[in-house]
Amino acid sequence: MAGKTVSGVGERPLIELITRRLSRPDQVILGVGDDAAALCCPPGRLLLTTDMLVEGVHFRLGFGTPGQLGYKALAVNVSDIAAMGGTPWAAVVSLALPGTLAADTVAALYEGLDRAARRFGLAVVGGDTVASPGPVVINVALTGYADPEAVVTRRGARPGDLVYVTGSLGAAAAGLFILETPGSWPAEAAAFVCRRFLEPEPHLEGGRLLAAGGATALCDNSDGLAQEMHDLGRASGVGCVIYPERLPVEEPVRIIAAAAGVDVWDWALTGGEDYGLVACVPPDRASALENSFREAGIPFTRVGEITAGEFWTVWADGRRRPLVPAGFKHFSGDQGG
Amino acid sequence: MAGKTVSGVGERPLIELITRRLSRPDQVILGVGDDAAALCCPPGRLLLTTDMLVEGVHFRLGFGTPGQLGYKALAVNVSDIAAMGGTPWAAVVSLALPGTLAADTVAALYEGLDRAARRFGLAVVGGDTVASPGPVVINVALTGYADPEAVVTRRGARPGDLVYVTGSLGAAAAGLFILETPGSWPAEAAAFVCRRFLEPEPHLEGGRLLAAGGATALCDNSDGLAQEMHDLGRASGVGCVIYPERLPVEEPVRIIAAAAGVDVWDWALTGGEDYGLVACVPPDRASALENSFREAGIPFTRVGEITAGEFWTVWADGRRRPLVPAGFKHFSGDQGG
Repeated sequence: MAGKTVSGVGERPLIELITRRLSRPDQVILGVGDDAAALCCPPGRLLLTTDMLVEGVHFRLGFGTPGQLGYKALAVNVSDIAAMGGTPWAAVVSLALPGTLAADTVAALYEGLDRAARRFGLAVVGGDTVASPGPVVINVALTGYADPEAVVTRRGARPGDLVYVTGSLGAAAAGLFILETPGSWPAEAAAFVCRRFLEPEPHLEGGRLLAAGGATALCDNSDGLAQEMHDLGRASGVGCVIYPERLPVEEPVRIIAAAAGVDVWDWALTGGEDYGLVACVPPDRASALENSFREAGIPFTRVGEITAGEFWTVWADGRRRPLVPAGFKHFSGDQGG
Repeated sequence: MAGKTVSGVGERPLIELITRRLSRPDQVILGVGDDAAALCCPPGRLLLTTDMLVEGVHFRLGFGTPGQLGYKALAVNVSDIAAMGGTPWAAVVSLALPGTLAADTVAALYEGLDRAARRFGLAVVGGDTVASPGPVVINVALTGYADPEAVVTRRGARPGDLVYVTGSLGAAAAGLFILETPGSWPAEAAAFVCRRFLEPEPHLEGGRLLAAGGATALCDNSDGLAQEMHDLGRASGVGCVIYPERLPVEEPVRIIAAAAGVDVWDWALTGGEDYGLVACVPPDRASALENSFREAGIPFTRVGEITAGEFWTVWADGRRRPLVPAGFKHFSGDQGG
């Protein structure tokens, strides 16, 4: 396959070659290669989600390795399952590929998909591969399952609930900044944040702890905290107060922000693609959940409260400003969405 | 929304507006609007399939209405579930949309999706909408279910099995020819074949009859009979003989072929996107299945046999020629796949 293009190998033989290596966990009755895959039905509720990544909008092939791209395409869907308190089960992958693309690139992309599948315990069981007249397009659809009593939506937040985030914020935005801005950046910090953008970590264990621990509303942080709070707030019919200086920001993000002359709270408040979770927790369940997260070794930080009013930030010096849903522009070439 | 573009309305508000109208069958616990949809688990085996349609490869916006495009995007996935002997359950839809596209086009596309969803008894429960720097891309992923004892794959064909097709062949290829070839064609026949290309009919009932009736191998006819026989034969480790003159071809297809100076058997053998089923049936189960199809009023035609050898056509005059897997080029702009 070395040196050949997608057109040269042919999409169908190429995918047959590549998918032979995919892991095949126990839930798979019939995997890649038939009209549809056949699986054992998972226990509880069936979850279903999908995400489409478009070259020039969500990624550039030069930003990371093709393996990282494959990994991310699956990881962002796993994050959606985590945000329901669920467990991933099986995925299908559609690829639109320009004929001139190197076959090795597609093989590496699938290696990344398989690495993510093994890591998150799910099966890649099929897909579709088609020609693209333009950009590479990757679509992953993922099934998962959850305890019927513990599916956590965006709709259950109530005034008085405490707002928590898992993991940290702003690292993916800092990574995207580095990838878009050639220059001499502090090397260690730059490598850290780039990796966070290129290989985000879905918070499956955090989602399960929150579902079991009685979170009232839950979503993943794909579009930036400000946007997610607006979406969750609108779904629940509530508002919120966020305390920006409480947002968990790791040292490499501060280093890059300082070097770039960027306000680190901008990245923490509006930077997307961190793929931690945003959770609303009634005060009487908060300390038990904090203990669970401490035992699991997962950062879990209280950053605000749900209110009956609008969306605000309140700063340490007492300033009060609207929480602006800046939305997350994937990068400067973005046309929205 | 009249006169506005996707960029003008914004992808997120646009989709929120449109998806409110979607049907919501009983299996839906949580539909569009959260990180993932939540559904009742279907009975039996879980089926999962996906298909990606790319503007300029699989469709042109001018070929039919946007509603027909939405309908087809779902119907081709339903056909994959039919080809497993299954029943569709729930789908997610990803759209990559150029910002300049008319918002009304997207609304009409969703109306077509919803029309197909209602017709085939499934739920559209979510998706992803993103910007496209180039073509419109539509990806549908569909779950379904089947009796664990009656999931029919492509792998079970045995020498001596009879080969049947459901429905008729060549109409979609004739329709595509008309859409690509401006001219003065017999109007009624042209309308018939264009509709077959633009709104294919998945054979769910036929798939269930074949699964229950002991078909040994089954696939849908998306890439043309010749290609499908090669795929099915390779999966089963068998060959076949096809009798072209036995292939069921409807009168409008013959009329268009005659007017176009095209060999109608070319369309019947290699034309794709008819989305009927191709089935292998042991001789001792054939007459019972023929009776079932007759009672159901579904055309079911014996067109060949499975052999231990290669892939051949045998003509009425005794000629014997290789069955060439011409593959289906979606249209002349196709780059393969």
